[in-house]
Amino acid sequence: MQYYLNGFKPGDPDVQEVAPARAGAGLPEKVDVLIAGCGPAGLCLAAQLSQFPEIHTMIVEPKPGPIEKGQADGLNVRSMEMFQAFGFAEKVKREAYWVNQTNFWAPDPANPAGIKRIGRVQDVADDLSEMPHTLMNQARVHEMFLDVMRNSPTRLEPHYSLAVRDLTVDTTTDDHPVTVTLERTGEGEEGQTVTVRANYVVGCDGARSNVRKAIGGELQGDAAHQAWGVMDILANTDFPDVRMKCLIASQKEGNVLILPREGGYLFRMYVELDKLNPDERVANRNLTIDHMIAAANRIMSPYSLDVKEVVWWSIYEIGHRLTNKFDDVPEGETATRNPRVFTAGDACHTHSPKAGQGMNVSMGDTFNLGWKLVQVFKGRSDASLLHSYTAERRAEAKRLVDTDHAWARIMSAPPGQSELDGTGMPRFQEHFIRNGMFTAGLEVEYGPSAIIAGNARQDLATGQKLGMRFHSAPVVRLADAMAMQLGHAAEADARWRIYAFAGAGDTGASGSAMRDLCDWLETDPASPVLRHTRGDEDIDAVIDVRAIFQQGFDELEYGTMPSLLKPAKGRYGLRDFEKIFCVDRKSGMDIYDMRGINRENGCMIVVRPDQYIAHILPLNAREDLAAFFAGFLKNA
Amino acid sequence: MQYYLNGFKPGDPDVQEVAPARAGAGLPEKVDVLIAGCGPAGLCLAAQLSQFPEIHTMIVEPKPGPIEKGQADGLNVRSMEMFQAFGFAEKVKREAYWVNQTNFWAPDPANPAGIKRIGRVQDVADDLSEMPHTLMNQARVHEMFLDVMRNSPTRLEPHYSLAVRDLTVDTTTDDHPVTVTLERTGEGEEGQTVTVRANYVVGCDGARSNVRKAIGGELQGDAAHQAWGVMDILANTDFPDVRMKCLIASQKEGNVLILPREGGYLFRMYVELDKLNPDERVANRNLTIDHMIAAANRIMSPYSLDVKEVVWWSIYEIGHRLTNKFDDVPEGETATRNPRVFTAGDACHTHSPKAGQGMNVSMGDTFNLGWKLVQVFKGRSDASLLHSYTAERRAEAKRLVDTDHAWARIMSAPPGQSELDGTGMPRFQEHFIRNGMFTAGLEVEYGPSAIIAGNARQDLATGQKLGMRFHSAPVVRLADAMAMQLGHAAEADARWRIYAFAGAGDTGASGSAMRDLCDWLETDPASPVLRHTRGDEDIDAVIDVRAIFQQGFDELEYGTMPSLLKPAKGRYGLRDFEKIFCVDRKSGMDIYDMRGINRENGCMIVVRPDQYIAHILPLNAREDLAAFFAGFLKNA
Ligand SMILES: Cc1cc2nc3c(=O)[nH]c(=O)nc-3n(C[C@H](O)[C@H](O)[C@H](O)COP(=O)(O)OP(=O)(O)OC[C@H]3O[C@@H](n4cnc5c(N)ncnc54)[C@H](O)[C@@H]3O)c2cc1C
Ligand SMILES: Cc1cc2nc3c(=O)[nH]c(=O)nc-3n(C[C@H](O)[C@H](O)[C@H](O)COP(=O)(O)OP(=O)(O)OC[C@H]3O[C@@H](n4cnc5c(N)ncnc54)[C@H](O)[C@@H]3O)c2cc1C
Repeated sequence: MQYYLNGFKPGDPDVQEVAPARAGAGLPEKVDVLIAGCGPAGLCLAAQLSQFPEIHTMIVEPKPGPIEKGQADGLNVRSMEMFQAFGFAEKVKREAYWVNQTNFWAPDPANPAGIKRIGRVQDVADDLSEMPHTLMNQARVHEMFLDVMRNSPTRLEPHYSLAVRDLTVDTTTDDHPVTVTLERTGEGEEGQTVTVRANYVVGCDGARSNVRKAIGGELQGDAAHQAWGVMDILANTDFPDVRMKCLIASQKEGNVLILPREGGYLFRMYVELDKLNPDERVANRNLTIDHMIAAANRIMSPYSLDVKEVVWWSIYEIGHRLTNKFDDVPEGETATRNPRVFTAGDACHTHSPKAGQGMNVSMGDTFNLGWKLVQVFKGRSDASLLHSYTAERRAEAKRLVDTDHAWARIMSAPPGQSELDGTGMPRFQEHFIRNGMFTAGLEVEYGPSAIIAGNARQDLATGQKLGMRFHSAPVVRLADAMAMQLGHAAEADARWRIYAFAGAGDTGASGSAMRDLCDWLETDPASPVLRHTRGDEDIDAVIDVRAIFQQGFDELEYGTMPSLLKPAKGRYGLRDFEKIFCVDRKSGMDIYDMRGINRENGCMIVVRPDQYIAHILPLNAREDLAAFFAGFLKNA
Repeated sequence: MQYYLNGFKPGDPDVQEVAPARAGAGLPEKVDVLIAGCGPAGLCLAAQLSQFPEIHTMIVEPKPGPIEKGQADGLNVRSMEMFQAFGFAEKVKREAYWVNQTNFWAPDPANPAGIKRIGRVQDVADDLSEMPHTLMNQARVHEMFLDVMRNSPTRLEPHYSLAVRDLTVDTTTDDHPVTVTLERTGEGEEGQTVTVRANYVVGCDGARSNVRKAIGGELQGDAAHQAWGVMDILANTDFPDVRMKCLIASQKEGNVLILPREGGYLFRMYVELDKLNPDERVANRNLTIDHMIAAANRIMSPYSLDVKEVVWWSIYEIGHRLTNKFDDVPEGETATRNPRVFTAGDACHTHSPKAGQGMNVSMGDTFNLGWKLVQVFKGRSDASLLHSYTAERRAEAKRLVDTDHAWARIMSAPPGQSELDGTGMPRFQEHFIRNGMFTAGLEVEYGPSAIIAGNARQDLATGQKLGMRFHSAPVVRLADAMAMQLGHAAEADARWRIYAFAGAGDTGASGSAMRDLCDWLETDPASPVLRHTRGDEDIDAVIDVRAIFQQGFDELEYGTMPSLLKPAKGRYGLRDFEKIFCVDRKSGMDIYDMRGINRENGCMIVVRPDQYIAHILPLNAREDLAAFFAGFLKNA
């Protein structure tokens, strides 16, 4: 964690220096970005944008305040990696339940009316990520983002009791072209409206999104014909695996999913309720919490459940639905028009909660959009960059909906013969293992575009897949011998990163490939670092270059390293010491081996602000590197 | 982290349910414990006592509010272990500088006017602790404790602008026998006094302690004849090791100690200034920050220092001093009188800052005292237990002062010939290595007493030394397969712990030694658990039993474990799942091997609330165990 660059400041270093306040009390008339909805999607975006005082962000939420419980609770490793960049992964790791194992229970062949444990799987495979898979109340995740906003230079706070009712886009102007009608929802002021003009609107307003409707989006997909119940409870049970994530399939009573939760006592159960008739809706069935508890007891028999406190519960139908477009530009007009309105999260895709993706994918949407908006607002990129949001995230959402569909079908089918007689691997377990990367959030892969190179040298880093997230590994920081994760050098600061891996014997000294690269990046007019960074900015403000060497920290000299890697920054011109890394000799975990980095020649890995790998090149591929950045960054 | 035992509560789980407020506004007339001073000693005690609403604690501080910078910055691993128990070690680990290496620089034989690096030492030896050695502003440590207090059931806040002027003890009563005269120090009310009566007073009021004076204590030891300066600065330098802890000895210009600090830019320098004449004082020398910077530049030559911001600086003399008694009971009266007034921290011992012990030892003092006060207030122990505070901590302080004395002498001596010609290991380095355990805070060893057994079976756990702190190691929790540190099961909650290590083949099933022990502890009237715990308390309220088995988590059944290890707790009688541990097969770090636990028969290790090992016994040593606890715990 780096701080005090511009002088000492007492107190919590997470609380950043406050930016000058914007003039005017009450609601603003014009904003840069209006975010609809304080769910995970909206708050993740707000937390990102709140870091930039030059962007006037407003976030509205019809509820009177933050939710306190319920809804989603699964945080996959990819979300945890993102939380690391936002600075609160450690906090979540301390508070949350860690899903270490998933256990499978099925009818006991000796007594098919009862159940027995038939399998265990390590939930997150070794070295899939340095982060755990965790479970925590969605409301707590909201609070973490709200804290980031509160501590940001803009001290951004949501406007509660305010909903987006409708909006229109004026395609003839670039001056706040979106006119948004907001409606007050607070007691005594229901229905009062107020108008705000925005440059961009992001609808993170959930499954019934008004923003989606306003831009003509429609959720398409299958209707729901099955009722599942969910309850967060404090309860005693003689079921021995209640602190493990468990899938329990009974012979005739349906299925239960157990998710242990934060704090060591609370847990969640998803309980399959009756099948619904094709045009029947849950609302018409009068299902109550007592039905759920009774069903859970039947499914878990011979074990039983003694519920002491129902913290939250809900019964609902599964639907797998998706909108065609995540923005307001009609299919045929992408060449002539840039998007002004976006949807994200449940507003554009819904799916069952069983794969635990709800929060994760929604945050993934806006983490993708956030840095692009920043880049456009800062004048670094043309607004056409924003088309890539729909392109990248819709493909992801489609895969999610499809996978989830299959999963839900498998969850609801009665156990097969091979399971009952114990001859085959349980279908849950099989499917679960097959989907490990997916549920971890690590199958996201963006295709070639202006921001994902088409000609990457995948052979130079076989364990760092182009278009997928940069996979962290242990390193040791040269200046202070700090053993750490290389990926944790990246913060949610909308900056690009080049990880330059040195070839064999390279010490960064004069004449080495690393030195040549760094000197070129630092001084040549053709260097992307110089071309895209303004003279009054720190040299790493747009592209942050980090170097990794094959030696141990005590085999290299900091003093003789290239000056690009020791930049003077901030108002005092203080040296940044955190750019140079070595392999972790002591742990024996060598990042070159772990990630298949070419030892002989090294390579460069270009990583986007959202941690996805955009390019892989040889250390001397200067023109190619420059051309790549010039493809979406303007000259400064 | 365990929470929601008594029901779900939204928000930050570190914020505990508030206890009913005490009646009365303004200053109280009577309190249970009055703490003088908001330094590390006072705040550590206040944080501990604030957890117990039944104890009325008051803490006063003459300054108008918390300090913002300066003073000590070294946090040894032992303090970090204690922070873990208070719940904020993760936060410190994220914010602080980690001392991974210490480097040694001395005159360059080729050019003795300059310096060169002559040695490196890993700062914390492998497996000395699971915690790092860190450096962080003392003010931030204060804030962490203040947060613990603020989040505690009592929401304890200091009374600022209030000093202890004097106190008297009435030895004829047990009803608030200490009468304390407090003096207001706030602007406009200077000198106004107010009287408070207390059952106990703890003087954590620093080197000029009024509490010490009031009980007739005197700091004894050598006078100071040497001036050192300290500065916290934001600066640039071409000295390449400025992000490593460094000891630099120049040939003629004296020594410098560099301590890199939190945030990646700030660092501290201790600079040796001129020797003082025997009766000269720093105050009379007119030494300024400019002298210090100039001296640092001379010592570091050929490297130089360009200071951009001086955050804090101070110049002072080294004194190594100690009081005879840490409480108010005269030497000959310990059999007939129990202490009512204590001193802790700088109030009873001072020493140079060079070994980085100031904060650590002070917190160690009050962490020792805190649980004893709790135990007395809760009626669990007789007040004579409090004599052990002086007995245990004065011996420690003496060792500190002696070691520090030697260290300061070595630091100030000119480099020897073997160093100059490079033939011998630098004396700094040699001394540093020799003192590794000491500076880590891990040499603390309490001698036999009512609370440290005289007849422990050290042979059953050769790596867990009686009287020293319980040394954590990796384990896996059975119920949820959580890989964790066993030591982290302990919180700063003033409870005793029994770690029961199972013998070979023991699964906790009927007939096993573990089962027999647990059943006896749970049901036999002679069991210390039953004898010392009230019927209306959770069964682990006084003595918290944890079991460790030699198998992996997937080789044991939670269902068949002894019921003592699955206790029903809190208002709902919810099961506590966090009492049973297995070895960590995956990491290969086997706690039995690492800590020399007898594999064949296992053993019990009894650990005090402050994490020191009080007893080691065979699993079947029931009478001995009962007798030990009966030696200082009353029947409930
Ligand atoms: C009642 C409920 C129960 C759920 N249970 C589960 C579960 O058990 N497991 C699981 O995985 N997932 C569950 N989910 C889904 C999961 O919470 C979502 O997938 C996830 O929160 C998606 O995040 P989001 O930000 O896209 O949308 P949401 O979290 O739905 O947030 C949308 C926000 O927009 C606000 N909003 C609505 N209309 C407007 C408007 N017109 N203008 C502005 N703001 C508006 C809403 O009040 C809400 O705060 C549940 C969702 C709900 C609503
Ligand atoms: C100016 C200064 C510089 C220091 N520099 C270093 C350093 O560079 N390195 C290092 O290792 N250590 C340094 N120390 C020492 C280190 O801070 C102490 O060893 C450590 O803080 C001891 O903690 P403590 O709680 O015992 O005492 P302190 O931290 O001294 O706290 C004592 C508290 O009691 C308060 N107090 C004073 N009189 C009264 C009264 N009559 N009634 C009530 N409260 C009172 C004080 O205001 C203070 O807040 C420094 C100390 C000081 C004062």
